[in-house]
Amino acid sequence: MKESTNLVERLGYAKTQKLLIIHADDFGLAQSENAATITTLETGSVNSASIMVPCAWFPESAAHAKARPNADIGIHLTLTSEWKHYRWRPILAAHEVPSLVDEQGFMHDSVANLIRYATVEDIEKELRAQIERGIQFGITPSHLDSHMFSLVAKPQFLTVYLMLSREYKLPLLLNQDFIRRTVGYDIHPYITSQDVLVDHLYSAEPNDYEAGMLAFYKQTLQNLSPGLSEIILHPAYNNSEMQAITTEHPYWAADWRQYDFDFFTSAECAEIIQKEQIQLITWREIREKLF
Amino acid sequence: MKESTNLVERLGYAKTQKLLIIHADDFGLAQSENAATITTLETGSVNSASIMVPCAWFPESAAHAKARPNADIGIHLTLTSEWKHYRWRPILAAHEVPSLVDEQGFMHDSVANLIRYATVEDIEKELRAQIERGIQFGITPSHLDSHMFSLVAKPQFLTVYLMLSREYKLPLLLNQDFIRRTVGYDIHPYITSQDVLVDHLYSAEPNDYEAGMLAFYKQTLQNLSPGLSEIILHPAYNNSEMQAITTEHPYWAADWRQYDFDFFTSAECAEIIQKEQIQLITWREIREKLF
Repeated sequence: MKESTNLVERLGYAKTQKLLIIHADDFGLAQSENAATITTLETGSVNSASIMVPCAWFPESAAHAKARPNADIGIHLTLTSEWKHYRWRPILAAHEVPSLVDEQGFMHDSVANLIRYATVEDIEKELRAQIERGIQFGITPSHLDSHMFSLVAKPQFLTVYLMLSREYKLPLLLNQDFIRRTVGYDIHPYITSQDVLVDHLYSAEPNDYEAGMLAFYKQTLQNLSPGLSEIILHPAYNNSEMQAITTEHPYWAADWRQYDFDFFTSAECAEIIQKEQIQLITWREIREKLF
Repeated sequence: MKESTNLVERLGYAKTQKLLIIHADDFGLAQSENAATITTLETGSVNSASIMVPCAWFPESAAHAKARPNADIGIHLTLTSEWKHYRWRPILAAHEVPSLVDEQGFMHDSVANLIRYATVEDIEKELRAQIERGIQFGITPSHLDSHMFSLVAKPQFLTVYLMLSREYKLPLLLNQDFIRRTVGYDIHPYITSQDVLVDHLYSAEPNDYEAGMLAFYKQTLQNLSPGLSEIILHPAYNNSEMQAITTEHPYWAADWRQYDFDFFTSAECAEIIQKEQIQLITWREIREKLF
């Protein structure tokens, strides 16, 4: 793990520095998500986001990114379509990536079904199409990450994720502890000293939601360890569009996303970041220094 | 024009009867459109609607139709993607229907570009795929109509539209006066005595919007002529989703659609229908009697 414990110094900061990326996932998913994400980026504490290319509201998010080429916006590589009545298809035709679609031609509704059906060959083809389409629409991506962490779900998927990162010279979101805890394999056989791993990854989970999202985020910021950390959130407004998208999903639903928006646009959030001497950093800065 | 002047009697009504379909277009376009359409169908004066299969909110509209197999819901055959940041692709892969897509793989943004680029062969393939996909999702379509009237834009397109109607035994929306006024050709060489044409077609246009939508709808109902008429509306809520979809479009935008919703859910609308002795009729009734 030399590559992660030394990362802060490689980036030019003191070893004890707390470096943090505050990252909005799911940009492009919906109009509600787009409007809230743009507000958190422009007036909140969020400093990074990534775009879902296959979704209906992708063009609006891409237009935002195109107009701000220096903003820290990446590609949120997407292989699942997990909501009930609001679905999306791959960028490639279903018959070109048959293992990635369900019987209705939409992407699989869960990572479990992705693991069950998807071939590595189809994943690679579709993800290349997503990155190329993002670039075609004027995005200058700063990084890659993975919707629902599907690309770390098994080592064969991880190898595609790493290959695309190296080929496009784009850092990707990867955290050893998260993978060990959620999926249970050791990533060391797959990575090199050139790959950038975040030291700490924070993302609210159902028990955090039940206990109170604002408390979770406050505690996360107040207890941040030295090293490179990322906090993932999903800002959106708790409105009729988002409620309809997340219908029958108790978690990561419209109210959850409104809490994300509320906290990361609050004065309290900005004050804690300042008080705790947290240094915000972007994927673009990491890319420029290490890629 | 015997087939239209005799239509009311062929349907079993007195020749002087005013028959009216009150039709919501664009079901499936957006969550706002879906929610408003369902309310106008369930509690308003709207008695018919048609679904856009290629759009992101199609699955929600199809689930509604599947649960109500006797509702008067058809397929809104779609060949254009006309909004700025919210776009859709054909059901078929772009390389299967290359003449139907722009350089970004979305459907053309205007009927003019459709006329310029689309081949009749690609139109037929794509429309078959839309109808079949609608049926796959559980819709029992009662009729066909055409988004932005693109299928009457030239006689070659009209022949595909008529062929699908005859083959699927589904009535379609067609009105001679509308085509003569807007496109300028005579449809008689293309139709037979078996095709059902509505005698009168009403759809608010920009000058009606400028003069006041509610007045337009009141006058239309109060001055309805005997025969089979259809009024087309596009109910949606004037909310952030619909405003974002219709950005930079002065007409058929979010406020226009809210007026449609407001009038056709009003007590006044129901009262005028009753007072003017207007007989509401559905495409399903027409289909059962004449197909």
